[in-house]
Amino acid sequence: MTDLFPQLVRWRRGFHTFPELGFCEYRTAATICETLAALPGCTLRVGRDAMETEGRMGVPTSAELAEARAAALAAGAPAAWVEKMPDGLTGVVAEWTFPRPGPTLAFRVDIDALPITESASGSHLPTGAGFASHRPGRMHACGHDGHAAIGLGLAASIPARSRNWGGKLRLIFQPAEEGCCGAASMVAKGVVDDVDYFVAGHLGTAANETGLVSCGITDALAITKLDVILRGRAAHAGMKPNEGRNALLAAASLVLNLHAISRHADGDTRVNVGELHAGSGRNVIADRADLQLEVRGATTDVNHYMTGEAHRIIAAAAAMHGVEAEIRLVGAAEGARCDEGLKQIVREAALGLPQTTRVVDTLPLKASEDATIFMNAVQRRGGHATYVLIGSSLAAGHHHPEFDFDERSLPHGVDLYAAIADRILSVK
Amino acid sequence: MTDLFPQLVRWRRGFHTFPELGFCEYRTAATICETLAALPGCTLRVGRDAMETEGRMGVPTSAELAEARAAALAAGAPAAWVEKMPDGLTGVVAEWTFPRPGPTLAFRVDIDALPITESASGSHLPTGAGFASHRPGRMHACGHDGHAAIGLGLAASIPARSRNWGGKLRLIFQPAEEGCCGAASMVAKGVVDDVDYFVAGHLGTAANETGLVSCGITDALAITKLDVILRGRAAHAGMKPNEGRNALLAAASLVLNLHAISRHADGDTRVNVGELHAGSGRNVIADRADLQLEVRGATTDVNHYMTGEAHRIIAAAAAMHGVEAEIRLVGAAEGARCDEGLKQIVREAALGLPQTTRVVDTLPLKASEDATIFMNAVQRRGGHATYVLIGSSLAAGHHHPEFDFDERSLPHGVDLYAAIADRILSVK
Amino acid sequence: MTDLFPQLVRWRRGFHTFPELGFCEYRTAATICETLAALPGCTLRVGRDAMETEGRMGVPTSAELAEARAAALAAGAPAAWVEKMPDGLTGVVAEWTFPRPGPTLAFRVDIDALPITESASGSHLPTGAGFASHRPGRMHACGHDGHAAIGLGLAASIPARSRNWGGKLRLIFQPAEEGCCGAASMVAKGVVDDVDYFVAGHLGTAANETGLVSCGITDALAITKLDVILRGRAAHAGMKPNEGRNALLAAASLVLNLHAISRHADGDTRVNVGELHAGSGRNVIADRADLQLEVRGATTDVNHYMTGEAHRIIAAAAAMHGVEAEIRLVGAAEGARCDEGLKQIVREAALGLPQTTRVVDTLPLKASEDATIFMNAVQRRGGHATYVLIGSSLAAGHHHPEFDFDERSLPHGVDLYAAIADRILSVK
Amino acid sequence: MTDLFPQLVRWRRGFHTFPELGFCEYRTAATICETLAALPGCTLRVGRDAMETEGRMGVPTSAELAEARAAALAAGAPAAWVEKMPDGLTGVVAEWTFPRPGPTLAFRVDIDALPITESASGSHLPTGAGFASHRPGRMHACGHDGHAAIGLGLAASIPARSRNWGGKLRLIFQPAEEGCCGAASMVAKGVVDDVDYFVAGHLGTAANETGLVSCGITDALAITKLDVILRGRAAHAGMKPNEGRNALLAAASLVLNLHAISRHADGDTRVNVGELHAGSGRNVIADRADLQLEVRGATTDVNHYMTGEAHRIIAAAAAMHGVEAEIRLVGAAEGARCDEGLKQIVREAALGLPQTTRVVDTLPLKASEDATIFMNAVQRRGGHATYVLIGSSLAAGHHHPEFDFDERSLPHGVDLYAAIADRILSVK
Repeated sequence: MTDLFPQLVRWRRGFHTFPELGFCEYRTAATICETLAALPGCTLRVGRDAMETEGRMGVPTSAELAEARAAALAAGAPAAWVEKMPDGLTGVVAEWTFPRPGPTLAFRVDIDALPITESASGSHLPTGAGFASHRPGRMHACGHDGHAAIGLGLAASIPARSRNWGGKLRLIFQPAEEGCCGAASMVAKGVVDDVDYFVAGHLGTAANETGLVSCGITDALAITKLDVILRGRAAHAGMKPNEGRNALLAAASLVLNLHAISRHADGDTRVNVGELHAGSGRNVIADRADLQLEVRGATTDVNHYMTGEAHRIIAAAAAMHGVEAEIRLVGAAEGARCDEGLKQIVREAALGLPQTTRVVDTLPLKASEDATIFMNAVQRRGGHATYVLIGSSLAAGHHHPEFDFDERSLPHGVDLYAAIADRILSVK
Repeated sequence: MTDLFPQLVRWRRGFHTFPELGFCEYRTAATICETLAALPGCTLRVGRDAMETEGRMGVPTSAELAEARAAALAAGAPAAWVEKMPDGLTGVVAEWTFPRPGPTLAFRVDIDALPITESASGSHLPTGAGFASHRPGRMHACGHDGHAAIGLGLAASIPARSRNWGGKLRLIFQPAEEGCCGAASMVAKGVVDDVDYFVAGHLGTAANETGLVSCGITDALAITKLDVILRGRAAHAGMKPNEGRNALLAAASLVLNLHAISRHADGDTRVNVGELHAGSGRNVIADRADLQLEVRGATTDVNHYMTGEAHRIIAAAAAMHGVEAEIRLVGAAEGARCDEGLKQIVREAALGLPQTTRVVDTLPLKASEDATIFMNAVQRRGGHATYVLIGSSLAAGHHHPEFDFDERSLPHGVDLYAAIADRILSVK
Repeated sequence: MTDLFPQLVRWRRGFHTFPELGFCEYRTAATICETLAALPGCTLRVGRDAMETEGRMGVPTSAELAEARAAALAAGAPAAWVEKMPDGLTGVVAEWTFPRPGPTLAFRVDIDALPITESASGSHLPTGAGFASHRPGRMHACGHDGHAAIGLGLAASIPARSRNWGGKLRLIFQPAEEGCCGAASMVAKGVVDDVDYFVAGHLGTAANETGLVSCGITDALAITKLDVILRGRAAHAGMKPNEGRNALLAAASLVLNLHAISRHADGDTRVNVGELHAGSGRNVIADRADLQLEVRGATTDVNHYMTGEAHRIIAAAAAMHGVEAEIRLVGAAEGARCDEGLKQIVREAALGLPQTTRVVDTLPLKASEDATIFMNAVQRRGGHATYVLIGSSLAAGHHHPEFDFDERSLPHGVDLYAAIADRILSVK
Repeated sequence: MTDLFPQLVRWRRGFHTFPELGFCEYRTAATICETLAALPGCTLRVGRDAMETEGRMGVPTSAELAEARAAALAAGAPAAWVEKMPDGLTGVVAEWTFPRPGPTLAFRVDIDALPITESASGSHLPTGAGFASHRPGRMHACGHDGHAAIGLGLAASIPARSRNWGGKLRLIFQPAEEGCCGAASMVAKGVVDDVDYFVAGHLGTAANETGLVSCGITDALAITKLDVILRGRAAHAGMKPNEGRNALLAAASLVLNLHAISRHADGDTRVNVGELHAGSGRNVIADRADLQLEVRGATTDVNHYMTGEAHRIIAAAAAMHGVEAEIRLVGAAEGARCDEGLKQIVREAALGLPQTTRVVDTLPLKASEDATIFMNAVQRRGGHATYVLIGSSLAAGHHHPEFDFDERSLPHGVDLYAAIADRILSVK
């Protein structure tokens, strides 16, 4: 086991105390930059150099971003680095170029937190051990604090490991994975355009067992997240019912017909309108309805079908009741296929580590992840990609207020990633 | 009482034995023409001279028209007159011009029957007395046989009555009142363009009492009748569900949303999808749905609102499920307002008749009638119009297989119409 | 004109500055009590003696009542009277019994305000003249401040007017008319059980003209206001969609089917779901939906039909999606018929006043009013009832932030009510 | 290759000329009985001895059965055997018991045809070769004529093959496989209660290649077929809309909500309302709606979920609109799992035949089959089951008017079944 363990725990716990939502990761990203900048051979891209402003989805309002930035600075975020991240452009790309020729290998780690209030119970380790979130309504309940620590750990171990390496190693710190909002704009910026091997990973999930490694995943559901605003016209429901344009009624028709989208021959589909808020008074015909919805598909194509159906139904439900529909894309992820050859490399790397207790080929993810957007971009250009699960015994499920992972998985992750790099970058 | 009673009964019973549906009234109309042609001073317009081919709604197919024509000829319809009624143009307009100047007065009588099989019970007078319908599935169950007889009776009594009359008297025999299909094309032809006074009437309805006269009506509901065909794409529901375009599902959404059209501040509305037939097999996504629907409104404007809403919803329901919608207008009637002055003339005329037992200003019709299209056309040009109810004790309600009216109302109707003409056309 | 004008304006403006919502009228009602208690011959019933605790609808929470009570006391409400009004029982019944026998006559005035923020524009008279609402989000925007002043004015004028009166005069100060929440519990208490003549009234509405008096109304729509809570079961929309019980989907089905309730042959109907709030996150199957809805009918019977349909549809929509439905009745009013004889008395009373410029028999209310519950209770026991409109030129429509009536209508109202009492109670 | 080829073709073509729908297979089943009765050692069970009267689904009316029986007799069906098949009990079970002990092996073949009119094109082999269906609207378009021939061929080959066999061989000729209507009643009768090995099979389907053998299948969708009748109350849509109970509107709500049943975490689902017929006239509120629907699931459990949801939604949609719902189960099939050991036996048997060109482990069926009910019944008692595909090059897809299979697959099927029997029944 790497002797980085105490440092990994310090990094992880540091991030854990100050969780930041998507595109608000000012302190997290600036801390990562400051740490990496101290390492020899590391080139950094941040802000507009790491992601496109436009390709992002679900970006908070300017006021929310400003508030997050101020809070980060107040909490000691390195101001010089925060300066380089205007308007929530909190992605970071670190790169090492080795003298000899070789392939380009990229790892992605995600760094954002969730809008959850962490458990105050003393039996919840972060609380008991004093590193729980300082921020009500914000929590690292999905392990991205650990991912960020693994990324730093891998970076820190490169000098000692890379003597025989050729090509390039790139470390992508992605904001806003929750909601599937951040990956697309980094892909749009081209940060994986030249990547030959791409590895993303996650602590826990289906690999709820410390020591287990899954070399790939199946069942990553492609997803499209839409916000819909229907705008109608108010009228008194008793005196002028025919003068209204009923946004609530349009929303009801929309919801029913969305849920009735036909199943698809090529695999699983999902549809959910998770929130609906409409109307301004019992006796007023509702002039506005706000809906939050998502569709998913077993593959990118199946999800494309669902998204197309949804768009058509939204437009028609609005037209049906004479209201206007505005549709905002606020998140997206694709389906994924893990390459056999790269899974085999992961398998060998994992089997070579003393911490590894068990290796499986794949586990079903049964959820959505925008790492898939990187994966498909790499594969479309002929590269190889996989999504690794780093097993960790969990105290409670992901997104739960008492979520916690086994910190022994941090050095396991670092060593696994380093071993993968060894196999891919070592010049024979 | 006019001594026409026996002749009125013969005419009525003759029409009753051979009921003909809308635009198929070959024998009825040709018999009317033959009878009128024998009267002095009567000018006749039939076929293309009495109605526009295009303005009609709900016209039977060519095959159905041909079959109806053949049946009429086989039943003894005067062939020379049938010849003048191509393609179901079965309207007849008779006119008398008097030597002295004066206003133009028009009466409308409707002549079509219903797709109902007449009761075979001996206690049903037409059956017991031997003049029931000879045609299964066809019946004069709304009294239009009586209306036609009253029209002929009025025509027959003109020579004796009109010595002191000036202006013109026009008698409009309208096909296809049931379904509100025929009036618009006669109006389009201009048959009421120059009319100063217009009177339509009905036996019975709310005036279910022999001897009663209602000088006008309220609550004639404007109506629009639409046939809708939704055309989608079939697909195997198990193997290729996403390849279908589900016309049945579109129809379901259409039906629900049509019934949910908002009420109107200005008066009653109605909506009904009365028939829906869709699909070709349990395991096939339906590629076609046929709907028969109607909307109504307390006024022409309110019905216009309902019709507009329906059109928008039909288009949107089709778009929602990716199917094509075809909309056919198959019937229409308007709201109506009876003129006070003309109601007063009717009142005086009625009170002067020995058969009259009671006179009321108006009764609510609570139904739809395309005489309203004549009425509004006359009123738009400054003329006066009303809709008279000629009371008659009914054996059973309109459209019932045992419907029958009191034949004593026939001479009452003739005398009432003649007395109205006397008041309007007599030169002082 | 009564010389009460300055006092009426003081009362009205006093109430206007401190508007209180339904069942929160602590200061208003206590001020009324204090004023009335100073008058000779006046008996007062308040709190549990004026209304049933249970019959009320839409009662605020205990916390809201306590807050309103504290604010009233802080604003100088007479504490002794507030003490007598526990739990929002803010109704007041004043009574005068005259020595000689005679009928019982009751007037109802309503005293509550609306959840509206008053206009701060200087051109809005209450603001310009310095008597605008002191309370953001609360406003007398329907004239009930004026109604309360008219009630006090009538009370104050009784001693001088009643020398020749027999029987009883009762003045009912009703809380919570907005929302149609308060009348039923006063009727349940029996406050009109022995009433022979009942008069309610309103400033303005369809009588937007100072000096006009309408002796009665038509088109008071019966109404039922329901809050519906649907409770389902949350589940992850991607991973466990079949484990949810979708309250949002049930709500959508409920809304569509409610709006599709069939029209009624006997008169106008209305239905509106004015607010719908459902769900707790995009990727969670919604476990709760809250709806605010109302149905109306031209008559109490037609509204009874609508209410029955709504209840059945709510239960079925919940059952359809396996969720639980809770239905809360939060407001109700009935249809109304104004008695001819009493309208005639009002007509004569109005015509005898110098302020009256015009008298009409009825005007259409086209809205809902729970005075109708009093009216029907009185008429069921053989008494007579009407609903008077006291004309007033309005600065803006009812419920508008710039609503204001013409204060000259206050003495007109007092004199009209006193003249009605004169005609009914004077011993001949 | 067996020398039965000419006989197999005669049998198949004989059945092909006289296709019979489910439970109407009088001529087919009686011919099978007559043929089998001539074989040594064969015991026959028919009629009430082969299936339960009650367990059947989708049984034609008595009149339809009587007509089918008369047609069969007129076409030369052996009357003595037809006599033994009252009320459409057209199942046949043949059995051979061998002297030595051993397991019980059962094969199922299905014998019914489809309501399709066969192609009259000369390029369609059955038409060109003169053995097309003699019955318009009836066709063996799924190869069950071939299945019946293979069954007879296997029976005919037993004497020569079975010298070394022990145990029992049972041949189950099942009626009404189309619609998934017949298997359940044979299982209910106990015809597989003692079966150790069960093999069903199909020509073609996913194995559209002569010479190919698939040892098992995946993706057999469990299915439930329901007919729903909604009964409401008619009323005139203009005059008495509130007096109706709208079955068409209930059907619309039913359709939308059925299609909106939530997806399932455990696998594919399907839902389709394939036919809907409602109403009796445009201006009449529909008093009846008839729906034909089906739900499916990847497994028996998933389909059970779908069926439960459908039942709840049907009941609630009826309750919502005050109509009565009658639900008829008219077909059902289960999910299936093919046993590994038995698939291995099939593989070895197939590989030993000269006609076999290719063997695969499984192919996806992607459809529903009630052989699954036999399979699960056998497996529940500890037996083994599989569903074999006998490859055959098809002229057109199953259920197409030009469907035809390659008759060389008939001896391949017989030899495959016999080889399977050899492996299972041979006494070592």
